[in-house]
Amino acid sequence: MKIVLLGSGNVATHLAQALKSKGEEIVQIYSQNLNHAQLLADRIPCESIDNLKAIKTDADLYIIAVKDDAIESIADHLKAVSGLVVHTSGTTDIQVLSSKVKHAGVLYPLQTFSKTKEVSFEEIPLCIEATDESHLSILQNLASKLSQQVYHLGGDQRKVLHLAAVFACNFTNHLYTLAHQLLQQNDLDFEIIRPLIKETADKVMVSLPEKVQTGPAARGDETTLNKHFSMLNNMPELQHIYQTLSDSIKFMPK
Amino acid sequence: MKIVLLGSGNVATHLAQALKSKGEEIVQIYSQNLNHAQLLADRIPCESIDNLKAIKTDADLYIIAVKDDAIESIADHLKAVSGLVVHTSGTTDIQVLSSKVKHAGVLYPLQTFSKTKEVSFEEIPLCIEATDESHLSILQNLASKLSQQVYHLGGDQRKVLHLAAVFACNFTNHLYTLAHQLLQQNDLDFEIIRPLIKETADKVMVSLPEKVQTGPAARGDETTLNKHFSMLNNMPELQHIYQTLSDSIKFMPK
Repeated sequence: MKIVLLGSGNVATHLAQALKSKGEEIVQIYSQNLNHAQLLADRIPCESIDNLKAIKTDADLYIIAVKDDAIESIADHLKAVSGLVVHTSGTTDIQVLSSKVKHAGVLYPLQTFSKTKEVSFEEIPLCIEATDESHLSILQNLASKLSQQVYHLGGDQRKVLHLAAVFACNFTNHLYTLAHQLLQQNDLDFEIIRPLIKETADKVMVSLPEKVQTGPAARGDETTLNKHFSMLNNMPELQHIYQTLSDSIKFMPK
Repeated sequence: MKIVLLGSGNVATHLAQALKSKGEEIVQIYSQNLNHAQLLADRIPCESIDNLKAIKTDADLYIIAVKDDAIESIADHLKAVSGLVVHTSGTTDIQVLSSKVKHAGVLYPLQTFSKTKEVSFEEIPLCIEATDESHLSILQNLASKLSQQVYHLGGDQRKVLHLAAVFACNFTNHLYTLAHQLLQQNDLDFEIIRPLIKETADKVMVSLPEKVQTGPAARGDETTLNKHFSMLNNMPELQHIYQTLSDSIKFMPK
């Protein structure tokens, strides 16, 4: 299968490496910034371009791994191709593609990528969708080579998943940041709290989170809740977050 | 060193096992509930009691690992002992003990314990405090046998650490619960989001969280923020949390 990759960010980079490692043929990488495209293309190796008019038209698969708001304008340049065109976005409708290209699909990897940290692609859930059955099965074959977890999801489910991921990943990481802020202000190193963060995540690998909730709000310990609230008197934003999340824990059905 | 353990909950259970594995001598375990005391004492083995008047008076160390609001009344029964009396609480002043017993201290393990999941005690940061230098060094010696990370912290620092732990552990776990709730309502299994949770925690084992923040709020992606906000129209509580945490991410100094 000949693949054209459009994008050179975190998702594109990890996807390119995973595809390469499975012996898939990436024939071209596009980026607005030619240096970025070239840097990634050199690792494959393959052609790099920064001009959408230079996209090869005979590939089997076009993977658009760019910012959500740039997907549509790239699809405009793929109207002529007969291969399958997929995006990798959690929130973008498949219609954004299917209204423009002949065969549209979605290949959404549910993971947080950073350019510096390696991830094992085989452990990343891949959510796929396509406008017709034959292309869904092409996508299924490819996704199964890349990952052990492949899910067929409609657009509504995929969007919910993306929203849930914001809670479980982005918001969670921000809470780590707020914890770090508190520690820093009191000359405590972030290192001290790392084992706790790790164990908190490890616990829900085998249990459901609602079964292992601990802390003052969960046990209705008003004395500690009040102490903590007072300690945040000079940090109204953290105080508000403390109150909001503690209330949410308290009123959670058990 | 002869040790009396007061408590039979999660902290007491993990502590008892760790002390035993390091060859420390637990001579007695107290619990309000004799069955609970006995269950744990059988594993050591040692004597179990449910009567505070039966506490041995010749031990070297008394570890009070009970709910915060029960510490003081237990200390009332330890006025006569000449050994060191410590509690294991993140939020309780050392004065609660030192106003009653001859030698007081704190041995606070910074971890989230569940009775069912094993944790490696050696990786748990132990925060210690004592009213005098000689007992601090006794505590230091014991703590260093149990864990590779021992910190001397005053009460104020310990309380901040406990507060930071609520953000990094209790609130984080609650966000996992909210993510689960969203998934469940849309027939999606929690399994699909586990790799993301793991990677989010793994990332901050080597990086600082503020350096690896991702998501719509961090990149100022108002389109996605608005989409998510609308998706939560029927869940005002989650909508409020979404808004609160997104605002906090947006206004974070970079």
